[in-house]
Amino acid sequence: MSTPSAPLTGVVPPLLTPLTADGEVDLPSLERLIGHLLDGGVDGIFALGSSGEVAFWDDARRAAVLEAVTGTVAGQVPVIAGVIDMQTDRVIQHVRAAERFDLAGYVVTAPFYAITGPEEIDTHFRAVAAATDRPLWAYDIPVCVHAKLPAAQLLRLGADGVITGVKDSSGDDVGFRRLAAANRAAGSPLTLLTGHEIVVDGAYLAGADGSVPGLGNVDPSGYVRMHRAAQAGDWEQVRAEQDRLAQLFEIVFQPTDKVGPAAGVGAFKTALRELGIVETNTMASPMTPIEGAAVDRIREILGATGLLDGARAGTDA
Amino acid sequence: MSTPSAPLTGVVPPLLTPLTADGEVDLPSLERLIGHLLDGGVDGIFALGSSGEVAFWDDARRAAVLEAVTGTVAGQVPVIAGVIDMQTDRVIQHVRAAERFDLAGYVVTAPFYAITGPEEIDTHFRAVAAATDRPLWAYDIPVCVHAKLPAAQLLRLGADGVITGVKDSSGDDVGFRRLAAANRAAGSPLTLLTGHEIVVDGAYLAGADGSVPGLGNVDPSGYVRMHRAAQAGDWEQVRAEQDRLAQLFEIVFQPTDKVGPAAGVGAFKTALRELGIVETNTMASPMTPIEGAAVDRIREILGATGLLDGARAGTDA
Amino acid sequence: MSTPSAPLTGVVPPLLTPLTADGEVDLPSLERLIGHLLDGGVDGIFALGSSGEVAFWDDARRAAVLEAVTGTVAGQVPVIAGVIDMQTDRVIQHVRAAERFDLAGYVVTAPFYAITGPEEIDTHFRAVAAATDRPLWAYDIPVCVHAKLPAAQLLRLGADGVITGVKDSSGDDVGFRRLAAANRAAGSPLTLLTGHEIVVDGAYLAGADGSVPGLGNVDPSGYVRMHRAAQAGDWEQVRAEQDRLAQLFEIVFQPTDKVGPAAGVGAFKTALRELGIVETNTMASPMTPIEGAAVDRIREILGATGLLDGARAGTDA
Amino acid sequence: MSTPSAPLTGVVPPLLTPLTADGEVDLPSLERLIGHLLDGGVDGIFALGSSGEVAFWDDARRAAVLEAVTGTVAGQVPVIAGVIDMQTDRVIQHVRAAERFDLAGYVVTAPFYAITGPEEIDTHFRAVAAATDRPLWAYDIPVCVHAKLPAAQLLRLGADGVITGVKDSSGDDVGFRRLAAANRAAGSPLTLLTGHEIVVDGAYLAGADGSVPGLGNVDPSGYVRMHRAAQAGDWEQVRAEQDRLAQLFEIVFQPTDKVGPAAGVGAFKTALRELGIVETNTMASPMTPIEGAAVDRIREILGATGLLDGARAGTDA
Repeated sequence: MSTPSAPLTGVVPPLLTPLTADGEVDLPSLERLIGHLLDGGVDGIFALGSSGEVAFWDDARRAAVLEAVTGTVAGQVPVIAGVIDMQTDRVIQHVRAAERFDLAGYVVTAPFYAITGPEEIDTHFRAVAAATDRPLWAYDIPVCVHAKLPAAQLLRLGADGVITGVKDSSGDDVGFRRLAAANRAAGSPLTLLTGHEIVVDGAYLAGADGSVPGLGNVDPSGYVRMHRAAQAGDWEQVRAEQDRLAQLFEIVFQPTDKVGPAAGVGAFKTALRELGIVETNTMASPMTPIEGAAVDRIREILGATGLLDGARAGTDA
Repeated sequence: MSTPSAPLTGVVPPLLTPLTADGEVDLPSLERLIGHLLDGGVDGIFALGSSGEVAFWDDARRAAVLEAVTGTVAGQVPVIAGVIDMQTDRVIQHVRAAERFDLAGYVVTAPFYAITGPEEIDTHFRAVAAATDRPLWAYDIPVCVHAKLPAAQLLRLGADGVITGVKDSSGDDVGFRRLAAANRAAGSPLTLLTGHEIVVDGAYLAGADGSVPGLGNVDPSGYVRMHRAAQAGDWEQVRAEQDRLAQLFEIVFQPTDKVGPAAGVGAFKTALRELGIVETNTMASPMTPIEGAAVDRIREILGATGLLDGARAGTDA
Repeated sequence: MSTPSAPLTGVVPPLLTPLTADGEVDLPSLERLIGHLLDGGVDGIFALGSSGEVAFWDDARRAAVLEAVTGTVAGQVPVIAGVIDMQTDRVIQHVRAAERFDLAGYVVTAPFYAITGPEEIDTHFRAVAAATDRPLWAYDIPVCVHAKLPAAQLLRLGADGVITGVKDSSGDDVGFRRLAAANRAAGSPLTLLTGHEIVVDGAYLAGADGSVPGLGNVDPSGYVRMHRAAQAGDWEQVRAEQDRLAQLFEIVFQPTDKVGPAAGVGAFKTALRELGIVETNTMASPMTPIEGAAVDRIREILGATGLLDGARAGTDA
Repeated sequence: MSTPSAPLTGVVPPLLTPLTADGEVDLPSLERLIGHLLDGGVDGIFALGSSGEVAFWDDARRAAVLEAVTGTVAGQVPVIAGVIDMQTDRVIQHVRAAERFDLAGYVVTAPFYAITGPEEIDTHFRAVAAATDRPLWAYDIPVCVHAKLPAAQLLRLGADGVITGVKDSSGDDVGFRRLAAANRAAGSPLTLLTGHEIVVDGAYLAGADGSVPGLGNVDPSGYVRMHRAAQAGDWEQVRAEQDRLAQLFEIVFQPTDKVGPAAGVGAFKTALRELGIVETNTMASPMTPIEGAAVDRIREILGATGLLDGARAGTDA
C-alpha cells in the first residue's frame, strides 16, 4: 500500500456534523465550521469520528458528509475519514464507499460488540489495509470499543506498513508514553496523535506528533497556537494555552443530565451555536440537545475564556 | 402496535449461521440445522442473534439468512430476528429490510459504541417500536453492549406495549429474579427468556418463561425435555438434564487460545460438524475455526454426554 | 490438619453485630439475635463476616465478638469465624487470636488492597492453613476483594486438604455451577455454600450444600424451611419460600441514599429492630443508620411478608 | 488542626522496605537506601506506602519501620507515613501508634473492602483528622481502593483544613488536570503530588507540586533533577530526564510471571540490589522475589540508563 508524501501531524480536529433542527445535515453550517477550522490553521480534518456522531449515521449519511467535507475543504488540508463499524466486512464496505472522495486515509477501530481477541484484531487491520491503498490510522478508544490496543501490536502493524499512525483516546497516559518511547526506538513507524483535549501538553512532552481534539472545533486556533509553541519549545506558552483550553473544556461538564456524546459533542455544538458558527445544537436521535441553564453556563465559560469576543471580532490568533 | 396471539415461550435457540469453507452461508447445512432444532421440539427460532454471528454480517448477508431461515422453517414455529446495530436509525433500517419475511418479532439491544444514558435507551426502543407492528424483545447483553438494562425501565417499556419480552444474557441472576418478581407484581407484561445455558433450571425457579440457549443448537431436545419437565414440576429431571447440558457446555472452554464467539460459537459449530449436522466449523472472518486437540476434546465431551450415539441413532426427545 | 467429624452444611447465617446507640457491641441484643437464629433452626453461625461488619473492627472488638458469640451459642451449633484482613500475616494473627474460642473453622478471603496473582493466593491459603488445625473456608467475594477465585484453584486447595469449603458470594452463577460440577467429578472435596440471598434455590439445583444468607438474620426459619424442602425434593416449596424471601430482600433497596453495607446490613439491622430483636440499627462508623421513609418502607415489607405477625407470635418454623 | 510551616513539595519517594533473606526488616539496607535518597536530594520521604509493602505489615512491623526511618532520617527532610487500613478505627489506631515518631503528616486512603459511598468517605477523613494535629494527605489509588476520590470532595476537605494535599495515583490524567485547575481557582488549599513515575513531566505542566515516584528509590537524583528543571522552566531537560526515567521504568515489566507489587516493587528491589544499595530483593510473603532472566534484563536496563556506572562512581546529580 502507498504512503502519503508527508505524514499527517499537528492539529486534526474530529469534525462535528452540524444538523438542522429536523436532523438533516446542515450544509451551510458545515461549511462555516470547516472555514472556522481552516481559518484557525488546522493541519488536517478528521471526518466521521466519534465527535462527528458517526455511530449514528447510515451509509447514505456517511457518504453525504464525506462529499460535503471533501468538497468544502477542496484539498486545502488533508481529510481523513472514520470507517467505524462492528466488524471487518462492514468496515471494508465503508472504505469502498469512501474511495471516490479525496481522502488522505481512514481511521479504524478494533472490532466491537462481539468479544474479540488479539488474533482477530490483527487480522481485522490487515484485511482493511488490503482493501485500500490509502493509509490507515488505528483508533484506540476503549471507552467505546472496550478493548485497549496493545503497544506491541500497534508497533508490529506499523512496522508492517498496515497502519501509519494511532489516534489515542485510551485515557492511559502511562501507556501512551510507553508507546511513544517504543515507537521512537523502532524508528518511528507510527505517527501518534492524542485525542484528550486537556492533556495535549503532556502528550507533546511524551512524544505526540499532534492532536485530534473534539474541542478543536470550538477553538481551533488555540490548539494550533499550542502546537506551534510546542514545536518551538516554548513550553510556557504551551502550558498557558492548555490551561485556557482546559478551562474551556469545562463546557462538557455543564449538562449534568447527560452522558457521552450527548454531553460532550452536545456542548461543542452548543458553544459553536453561541459563537454564531452553526445554526443549531441539534444532536442525532436518540440524543436530545442541551437546553436551559447549562446553555447559560456554557456561554459564561466562552466569555471567561475570551471566545465570545473572538466571535464578534473574528478569530485571529 | 399489535401483539401476537400467544406469547412466545419455551425453548428458542439462537440459530447458528453455518458457513461453507470459503465463508458463504451454507444453505444445506442451515436446512439440516433447522431440521435438527425442529426435530428436537423447539418452540421458536431466534435468527441473527450474537450466536448467529450477526455482528459480522452486512445487510445483504442478513437478508439472505432471514430468507433462508423463514423459508425453511415455513411457519412450523415462530421465528424472531435480531436487528442488532450501533444506533437507532440503523436498527430501524434492519427492521424495514426484514418486514417482508415471516417473523414473529425483533430482538433489539440498547445502542452501543457511543456512551448512552437511560433517556436515549428509552427513546431508542420507542422509536424502533414505532417503526413496526411486530413485537420487540429487549436483548440485555452487557458483555457486548456494556450497559445493563434496568428492571424498572424494562417494565415501563413492557407496560407501555413497547416491548413484549426480554432476552436476558446479563449474567446477573439476582437482577433476573428481581425482574421476574417485579414483572409478576405488574401483571406479567413481559415474557422472560434466559440466555445462560447452564443455569436455566435456576432461571425457571426464578420465573423464566423459557430459554434462548446457544447450546440448544447442539442439543435442542435436551433443552426441550428440561422445559417440559419444569412445566410438569418434575425438578429432579430438570436438574438431571441441566447437569448433563452443563457437562456438554464444557465444549466452549476447550479452545484455550480463543475468546468470545470464536470459542463459544466456534465450539457449537465444531460439535455440530462432529455430529454430522453442518459441513464445516468455519467462522466469520476475522475469526478462525477451532482446530487440533480442542476438536478431540469436544468430541470426547459429545461422547460422554451421549450425543455421539444420538448422532448415529437420530435425536429422539 | 484435622477435618471436622461432619462437614458443615445447611443454613449458616453471617451473624450481624448489634451495636448500642454509642457504637459498642450490644450484648443483650446479640444474645437475642443468636437465640432468634437458633430458634429458627440454623445449622451453624458465621461470625465476623462482611455482614458482621468485620472490616470495621479492630482486634479487641473481634475478640469480644467471638467471645460473646461462642459463649452464647455454647456448642449448640458450629460457629465459624471470619479472619478477614489485607494480607497473610495479619490473617494469621487473627487466626491465632481466635484459637482459644470454640470454633469449627475460619473463613479466609484472598489477599486484597495490593494487586495479587494466583501464586500469591495459593501461598496465602496454604500459609493460613499451616497456622491452624481447624478447617478453612475460602470466601469468594470479588465485590470486596476484586479478584475471583478460579474453580481449578479452589479444587486443588480442596484436594490438598487446605480448604474444606467455599463460601461463594461471587455473583457468578455460571461459575458456581461449573465449580459444583467439577467438585462432584473430583469426589466432592469441597462443601459449597452460597451467599446470594435470593437465588439460593437455583444454587441448590446447581449443587450447593447450603447457604450463608445475610437475610437469614431476619428470617432464619424461612431459609431453614427452604433448605429442608430442597433436601426433601419439594421444589415447589423451595420456590415459594425463595420467592417470599426475595420479596423480603427488597428491604435492602429502600435506603436510596446508601450503598454497600450501609444499605444492606443497615436494612437487616433496621428490620431486626422493628421485629424487636435488636435494640438499635446503629452501624459501625463511618456508616450512619437508616432513617426516615426508608424505615417505613422496610416495615411495610416486613408486614407484607408475614414477619410482623411472626414478631408478635414468636418465630415458629 | 495545625498546618506545617511550609507545605511539602518536590520529590517525596515512597520508601521501599528492604528485607533480609528470611523476611525481617534489613536495617543496614534501609539505612543505605535512605542515604541514597538523601544523597539524591529528595525533598521528603513517604514511609509505609504501597511501595513500602504496608499492606503486608502488622502493627509491630509498621512501628519498627517508622522507628528506623525517622531515626535514620533524623529530621534532614520531612517524613510522612502511610496509615493504610480497611476502615476508620484501624486507621486511627495506626495514627495513634505513629504519634511518637517525628512525622510531618499521614497518608490516608478512602476505606476499602466494604463498598463505601461519598458520605462515609467524608466522615472517614474528618474522623482521622480529628485524631491528630498533623497534616493528612489523601491517597487516591483506585487500583487498590477501587474508588476514585472526586475532585470536588478533595477540594472541600482541603478548604476545611481536613487534608493538606493529595497523592494522586489514579491513572486519570484528565481528572488530575481538572483537580489542579479547580485547586488553583480555590486558592490552592491542596498540595498535589503525582505517583505516576513516567508522566511526571505532564503532571508538572498540569500543575503538580511534586511527585511520589516508586522508581525514585532507584534513581532519586533523576527525579530531583527533573523537579529542579521544571521549577526553572527548562522543559527540554524535564523531558530528557523523564524519557530516561521512562526507559528505566521498563524494569517493572521484565518479570512476566508476576503482577502488582511482586512485579513493580520487586523490580525496584532487584535494581537496588544490583546497584549495591540493598542486600536482597526479598519480598513480603506471600510474594516471591524476581529471579532468572528477568534479573538479567533489569541489569541491562540499569546499564542502558547509566545507573550501573553511577553505582560504581557514587550518585552525583
